[in-house]
Amino acid sequence: MNLDELTQRLHAIRDRNDWRRFHSPKNLAMAASVEMAELVEIFQWLGEDESRRLSAEQLEHAGQEVGDIVLYLLLMCAELGIDMEQAVRAKLADNERRFAT
Amino acid sequence: MNLDELTQRLHAIRDRNDWRRFHSPKNLAMAASVEMAELVEIFQWLGEDESRRLSAEQLEHAGQEVGDIVLYLLLMCAELGIDMEQAVRAKLADNERRFAT
Amino acid sequence: MNLDELTQRLHAIRDRNDWRRFHSPKNLAMAASVEMAELVEIFQWLGEDESRRLSAEQLEHAGQEVGDIVLYLLLMCAELGIDMEQAVRAKLADNERRFAT
Amino acid sequence: MNLDELTQRLHAIRDRNDWRRFHSPKNLAMAASVEMAELVEIFQWLGEDESRRLSAEQLEHAGQEVGDIVLYLLLMCAELGIDMEQAVRAKLADNERRFAT
Repeated sequence: MNLDELTQRLHAIRDRNDWRRFHSPKNLAMAASVEMAELVEIFQWLGEDESRRLSAEQLEHAGQEVGDIVLYLLLMCAELGIDMEQAVRAKLADNERRFAT
Repeated sequence: MNLDELTQRLHAIRDRNDWRRFHSPKNLAMAASVEMAELVEIFQWLGEDESRRLSAEQLEHAGQEVGDIVLYLLLMCAELGIDMEQAVRAKLADNERRFAT
Repeated sequence: MNLDELTQRLHAIRDRNDWRRFHSPKNLAMAASVEMAELVEIFQWLGEDESRRLSAEQLEHAGQEVGDIVLYLLLMCAELGIDMEQAVRAKLADNERRFAT
Repeated sequence: MNLDELTQRLHAIRDRNDWRRFHSPKNLAMAASVEMAELVEIFQWLGEDESRRLSAEQLEHAGQEVGDIVLYLLLMCAELGIDMEQAVRAKLADNERRFAT
């Protein structure tokens, strides 16, 4: 997943719509959390086994919410100067140290 | 960002700790939402301008939470058979159609 | 606010619709968190000052989300045997000890 | 539950600590959402049946989070001029109309 390319395309949408003034890290984190809740909503009344057997429509919906979350996180990381891949790899390496040795 | 490689390493941690039984999509979405709130917590009492000027320590913390969120989403996508990159690209293309033409 | 009366009316709705099997504490906490995000959504692109000057429509919407959150929390507390008023008063007394003496 | 009394005590804590400048509705909604996630965290790896059989320690923890959520919502309602009891009763009456007749 080419994060630089995705971020550039997100910034093009942002700039075309004059949204930069809304894109504080605080607001982008809030927006990501709202999309996350829309993902959680898919599962709220499902049993755990049912959550493994989503319909095609639910799967498409889940994918859309995952997309929204990752896109808002990319925008937030860009504002903060965080390299998302580096952050993800650092956390994974940390988990490997703690839980897989 | 090589999502397949990251997912394989996550699964190695999971299997070494016998966590698969906990990893229903429902639970992984919940876990991702808890990490998201830990990201939001960093910003809750900051003004929008302050949220653009995090300390080095706050930035590191934010990066760790971004890492946790993406890792749980990768695990959830793997359980559901969702291709995260395809989901992100589909959502971005949709946003481009709606907001940048 | 008479919490027993509210809980009894919530249980009447639940039983009329045969929803008890869905009402595990886990699911009710998830549902409350989804409603919470709908409240947060109202504020996500507003500045802090703007958040103090909601329109009548936004205020009505906010009130509806507060209602949903409190109702799901009441249902969850009932399932867990938690007395919401006692829990709220205990936390307030704790805050008074920590922050107001 | 006497909401006016609780709100007055919350305002006394707030004023003693000079926190009013932090208490925009936007920030209070964020803070409530963070506490909500701390409630959700208790349940994230539990099965639904397990979520009905919390330990005494988990129950106390859940009660504390419920307390935090309700207290932040009370502060937010006070800032917005929303009468929480009225909002809760309006939502319950709406649910009764939709689901119990």
